[in-house]
Amino acid sequence: MTAATLGEIVAALGGELTGDPQQCVTRIGPLASADRSTLSFLANPRYRAQLASTQAGCVIVSPEVRGEARTATIATADPYLYFARLTQWWARRTRVPAAAGVHPTAVVEEGAQVHPDASVGALAFVGRGARVEAGAVVGAQCHVGAGAVIGEGTRLAPRVVVGEGCRLGARCIVQPGAVIGGDGFGFAPHEGRWEKIEQLGAVRIGDDVEIGANTCIDRGALDDTVIEDGVKLDNLIQIAHNVRIGAHTAMAGCVGIAGSATIGAHCTIGGAAMIAGHLEIADHVHVSAGSFVSRSIRQPGHYTGVFPLDDNASWEKNAATLRQLHRLRERVRELEKKTG
Amino acid sequence: MTAATLGEIVAALGGELTGDPQQCVTRIGPLASADRSTLSFLANPRYRAQLASTQAGCVIVSPEVRGEARTATIATADPYLYFARLTQWWARRTRVPAAAGVHPTAVVEEGAQVHPDASVGALAFVGRGARVEAGAVVGAQCHVGAGAVIGEGTRLAPRVVVGEGCRLGARCIVQPGAVIGGDGFGFAPHEGRWEKIEQLGAVRIGDDVEIGANTCIDRGALDDTVIEDGVKLDNLIQIAHNVRIGAHTAMAGCVGIAGSATIGAHCTIGGAAMIAGHLEIADHVHVSAGSFVSRSIRQPGHYTGVFPLDDNASWEKNAATLRQLHRLRERVRELEKKTG
Amino acid sequence: MTAATLGEIVAALGGELTGDPQQCVTRIGPLASADRSTLSFLANPRYRAQLASTQAGCVIVSPEVRGEARTATIATADPYLYFARLTQWWARRTRVPAAAGVHPTAVVEEGAQVHPDASVGALAFVGRGARVEAGAVVGAQCHVGAGAVIGEGTRLAPRVVVGEGCRLGARCIVQPGAVIGGDGFGFAPHEGRWEKIEQLGAVRIGDDVEIGANTCIDRGALDDTVIEDGVKLDNLIQIAHNVRIGAHTAMAGCVGIAGSATIGAHCTIGGAAMIAGHLEIADHVHVSAGSFVSRSIRQPGHYTGVFPLDDNASWEKNAATLRQLHRLRERVRELEKKTG
Repeated sequence: MTAATLGEIVAALGGELTGDPQQCVTRIGPLASADRSTLSFLANPRYRAQLASTQAGCVIVSPEVRGEARTATIATADPYLYFARLTQWWARRTRVPAAAGVHPTAVVEEGAQVHPDASVGALAFVGRGARVEAGAVVGAQCHVGAGAVIGEGTRLAPRVVVGEGCRLGARCIVQPGAVIGGDGFGFAPHEGRWEKIEQLGAVRIGDDVEIGANTCIDRGALDDTVIEDGVKLDNLIQIAHNVRIGAHTAMAGCVGIAGSATIGAHCTIGGAAMIAGHLEIADHVHVSAGSFVSRSIRQPGHYTGVFPLDDNASWEKNAATLRQLHRLRERVRELEKKTG
Repeated sequence: MTAATLGEIVAALGGELTGDPQQCVTRIGPLASADRSTLSFLANPRYRAQLASTQAGCVIVSPEVRGEARTATIATADPYLYFARLTQWWARRTRVPAAAGVHPTAVVEEGAQVHPDASVGALAFVGRGARVEAGAVVGAQCHVGAGAVIGEGTRLAPRVVVGEGCRLGARCIVQPGAVIGGDGFGFAPHEGRWEKIEQLGAVRIGDDVEIGANTCIDRGALDDTVIEDGVKLDNLIQIAHNVRIGAHTAMAGCVGIAGSATIGAHCTIGGAAMIAGHLEIADHVHVSAGSFVSRSIRQPGHYTGVFPLDDNASWEKNAATLRQLHRLRERVRELEKKTG
Repeated sequence: MTAATLGEIVAALGGELTGDPQQCVTRIGPLASADRSTLSFLANPRYRAQLASTQAGCVIVSPEVRGEARTATIATADPYLYFARLTQWWARRTRVPAAAGVHPTAVVEEGAQVHPDASVGALAFVGRGARVEAGAVVGAQCHVGAGAVIGEGTRLAPRVVVGEGCRLGARCIVQPGAVIGGDGFGFAPHEGRWEKIEQLGAVRIGDDVEIGANTCIDRGALDDTVIEDGVKLDNLIQIAHNVRIGAHTAMAGCVGIAGSATIGAHCTIGGAAMIAGHLEIADHVHVSAGSFVSRSIRQPGHYTGVFPLDDNASWEKNAATLRQLHRLRERVRELEKKTG
């Protein structure tokens, strides 16, 4: 079990400790289920009342509520940010880092460059002309295609595919099963059949990007598909060919972005939302989960389009009426004429 | 080709045979496309009329309709359940079981425990401290992370990922491409960027759970993500961090469950339904396919929220009116005032 | 860098060249971003005005607009089709073909047949009784189960799973992470639990089929799941057991087709559309992206069912009214009675 003293934590991450620097904690946990060995945090003022009752050994708080805690506290301007950095510090202390070097069962083709500091895991494949930069980790059973680039400090979890010629910047994290650089979906119709358009572009990913498990980012048809710095993509997301996603935009699970859509920077796209192809979304747009975006959005703001849930019997009645809604409006118009 | 006599089947699975125990069948098949060598079943009374016309060699029926068949019958109280068990018996007879032992091309790290009865397939990886219990099968090219546990009799199809420290109970089945234990999607916003919250929890899966192809179950942020006994998940499902799914709940393909949602036991969630984060669904709730659940559901029942399909021209008119629906209601209210 | 002369291109692909056959191009690209070394095309008459201003070295055009270009042109009846074939020709010139033979790190079980012309990549697995036909490519880290068939000239990208007994025809392309032949999702309910129905069918795929990254096609319960010739499936699509998809139908990303649905030929299914189980879709049906199809569609045509997007405040008001829509209709009916 990992243990840390409050003194060590404050020395590493800052914050103002009220309490004994020698006090030990062995886990980070939520206020409600905390015990004496837990370091907890209060980020949402809604849970402020829990400060008086929690069993936590120490709580990370904002300075103005420090007085309400019965426990040790670490005061900091942004407790949630402090918590995030604490998890990073904790993970570095507790996780075994990937060993530098190439595992003997990995296949590294001739002409691939693997930096001596980098790690290539068991049964991984690195194709000719690929480059794995300093501190990068290619997890077990990953596939790095010919000519691909895995930037400095980027970590591929096990069983990631990075296709031929695709490039990831520095400090990216890619979860298992993600596929970067599958073919875009492009065909020319011809006499009732589909003629394949070979996808000659690649995928270009910036720095500090995270890509979720089994998420797919297709290579471009002619130019590249582009994911800018700091983008965060959850699991099972589909990014079609020639999409461009602006910096620091975040998308929740099961989102789909159709071909050639351009998404702005600092957007958030809720889970399972879908964005049609060839349209533009401005910066700072927030799309609710489950919404379908069929036109460009030029103004920042919050957009939604979801059928409200109901008990099935009520839904059936309302849905039946919805199919006659236009006619209903006409009936209202006729009534308005009649009543003058 | 596999063949079985009706006598062997009844000896193994019970039921009351009317017909010749020496009669052979070589396949199990639907009534409509059955021939003399087919063992078929009648589970849905709607298809009762097919009993008189089917060419099947034998039909599994409930006792009360036995008289209507012109063929041999096996009578049993629940023909569909009998059919399910028959498929299991058939599969055991026809499929080559995985060979016990570790394939020479697999990588098993030091400190991993593989039970002598268990099977680890070609090119699979089992990390340090992991445990593969008796009768478990780790398919070819699977990844079992450090400290993970694969319970007794659990079968991983080829190319499954079970991340570090994640645990599966007994008799689970995991389909190809599933990812158990990718990082949950957690970030603290900071000056327009996202600071990663390392996901320190794991995934804990009960007994008799089935997990579909390319389905993702994320590890918890601090505590574990939990899937209780008997849960069945279809393909391409997203289960976010710290979700809890109650026992014997089943979810169809493409469902998404957002973070920290708690789903009750014995629920069914239709395909592509989405459940928002941090909410609670009671036991015995049934959500229709394609519905979006944005609030907790406290009462058992059947819930729906789907836009009804229409020909595109009708949809366009109704959708345009829908965007003015609130105004339409106000117009109706004004008319009501006017007409007293 | 690859270069080709216009003369070489016309010799290979036909079309009528106006310009210097010795002129070189080094890339194919869109009109708007073209330079002197770019071969571009004009497929959509909407962009006709760009012909006068483009910097492209040569443009593929239809004969009637040839006169408007200031550059070299290749005239052809269907410029988009010509472009598609050009990308294929270009890819053949620029990509290193997979080496024939079995990579030394691949595992080919006894009794598997790999044609001497075929290629089996690094760390791939080919099970007993499987057959890899002439010119087929099994990518690195792929899994071809026992008894499976990979038809002539079919290419599996890295890390594809083709399950036991599943068959692909000739000239198919399968993108990374696709899973063909996972178990269908079938269970018999029994005393609050689910009894597994073993899936005894397989998947049968025709010729010239393309299957996207991380897409799943489940094996049938008793009979096979069938994908006919020329079908094109994008990424992250779920095809459940016993579905049949008619020839030359195309489906965009994130689509889900529930069990035993029969889809006609020459259909297009927009992204994230969902089709319920046990229903029939006629030939030449077009379903809009994001739509949910809950009943059979017997007539060709274009069908839609999507909640229109709005700013969140407007959506909230309209959605609230929608939940009372049936009552609103009754109020209109009462008004109509009143006003005679």
